[in-house]
Parts: sequence; structure tokens; C-alpha cells
Amino acid sequence: MSAVQEIERKFLVPTAPDLSGYVAEVVRQGYITVGGEGHEVRVRQKGQGYFITVKSKGTLARAEYETALSQEQFDTLWPATEGRRLEKTRYTGTLSDGFPCEVDIFEGALTGLVMVEVEFAKLEAAKAFSPPDWFGTDVTEDKRYKNSALASAGTLPPGT
Amino acid sequence: MSAVQEIERKFLVPTAPDLSGYVAEVVRQGYITVGGEGHEVRVRQKGQGYFITVKSKGTLARAEYETALSQEQFDTLWPATEGRRLEKTRYTGTLSDGFPCEVDIFEGALTGLVMVEVEFAKLEAAKAFSPPDWFGTDVTEDKRYKNSALASAGTLPPGT
Repeated sequence: MSAVQEIERKFLVPTAPDLSGYVAEVVRQGYITVGGEGHEVRVRQKGQGYFITVKSKGTLARAEYETALSQEQFDTLWPATEGRRLEKTRYTGTLSDGFPCEVDIFEGALTGLVMVEVEFAKLEAAKAFSPPDWFGTDVTEDKRYKNSALASAGTLPPGT
Repeated sequence: MSAVQEIERKFLVPTAPDLSGYVAEVVRQGYITVGGEGHEVRVRQKGQGYFITVKSKGTLARAEYETALSQEQFDTLWPATEGRRLEKTRYTGTLSDGFPCEVDIFEGALTGLVMVEVEFAKLEAAKAFSPPDWFGTDVTEDKRYKNSALASAGTLPPGT
């Protein structure tokens, strides 16, 4: 349970690298609200865990409030996300320069989309970050690639 | 834990009646989101209980998803409601014609406001309802008197 400032950069991945050193988990998530004017409220199943997460507005740095849910709590709230859901396999690992990263391989209507998120402790490190060769377009500021937008659209942005 | 269709009518109460037959509970609630374009997401402490409730758009009839929270879960999510909170004492009872009702006496910045909500099992009963003498203006469709709007405004609507 935590309230943290999340600093991330996100990139498209044209061709997924060797992920054998990564930890894979199936994630399904839905949005009770997708943000816009107010907070974004997400419920997520990650492996055997269930969570609710509130994020404030923004892209690079956002306040985040998260707490674990029981399966029963999750099951009660999940219907409120209808039409705003996605599934993906998340591969968690570490880049050669030590930054933690998550590679998301999307499924269902979003099959074909692969993205990587890199987490930073400080804004300066996020700005100075030099992406590895396998990283594609930087979509940190591209709202079409927010998970909430992808879940709502239910289809890939043109040109992905 | 439930997903129900809620049918309610709401009225201002110029002068609170004798509430000695009612059960009183202190309620504090905050809104993670206030609805508008999407769902309304509320966290509430009611006596010793904690809850999260999602409501779809609408006034008279709304879909509702609610589940109990632990105090720890509540405490984690509560900061996400800053600037959108209210406190009231809720008196729960039954009208002479058998309909369950809740009289809310607001506190803090909303002191002076008293409202009553009556719950109905069917839309026909809600429409046919004949209010007792102590009921004032019907504000069921007046969005300024939604709890989420009152919590966001932090002040009484003009003319209350």
C-alpha cells in the first residue's frame, strides 16, 4: 500500500528482445475511469494478486495511490470497467545500466503492440536516459499509448 | 458487496423532523472522481465501516458497485479525495408509508443543509411517491445537490 510519485518513460518496441532473463506475469486490467478531467482509477489482476490504483493527471510524473484487493473485492468492481479493459503479459527485468524496466506484450484486440516502460527515481535520470538499440519511438508524452486510452479504444493507434 | 440498480428521490428538508426513532451514524466521504464524463468513485467511512462505491452516470436510477474496505485500504485511497470531501450525520429510518429513508444533516462548510433520500424498489413507486409535509423542494434532478457536487464545491448552492 503506497502513495508514490511515479517517474517513467515509455517506448514502442518494434521487435521484442530476448526476454529469457525476465519474470513474466499475465496482467488483466480495466479502468473504472480513464482520467481526463479527474483521476484515473484502475483495477488489475497481476498473477495471483489484485489491486486498485488511482493515478493523478499527467504522463512523465504522476501521483499514485495503490492498495491490494481481495479477489472478492476485485470481482465486485470489475464489472464497472466494461468496455475499458486490456490483457497483456508483463516481463519485468533490468536494463544493462541498472534501470528497472517492464516489457508489455499486449494480447486480444491489441495484439502486435509491444511497449517498454523504464522507471526512474529522479526526473533528471529520466531526462538523461539513453535508450538501448531495441527501443523504438518514445511515446511517454503520446496519450494514445496510455494503457487507459488503449483499453478504451480497443484498437491500436494508426501507424503502430 | 453488491451491484444493484439504485432508485432514489431526494428532497431538501427546511426543518428537520423528530428523528428520535432513527439510527444515527457519522459519515465522512470523499470522491476520487466526481463522475461527469465517467463513473463516480467514492470512498466512505460510515460508523466503523469503510467502503468504496462506483456509480454510473444519472440521477434517479444508477448502477452501483460497492465493496467493503479495510481501514488500511481506506487510509491509502483517502488522500486521492483531497478537495472533494464532506461530513454529515446520517439518520436512517422508515416513512409512515413504509419506504426506507435517510436524512442527512451536513456539517463543516455545508452546515445548514439537510436533505432526505427515499429509496424505492421500482421506478413506478418512485414516480408515484407522495412526500410528507416536512419534505421541501424535490432536488432529485438538481445536480448541484449531488453529494459529489457539494463535496467539490465545498459550499452550499445559492438559495439553499
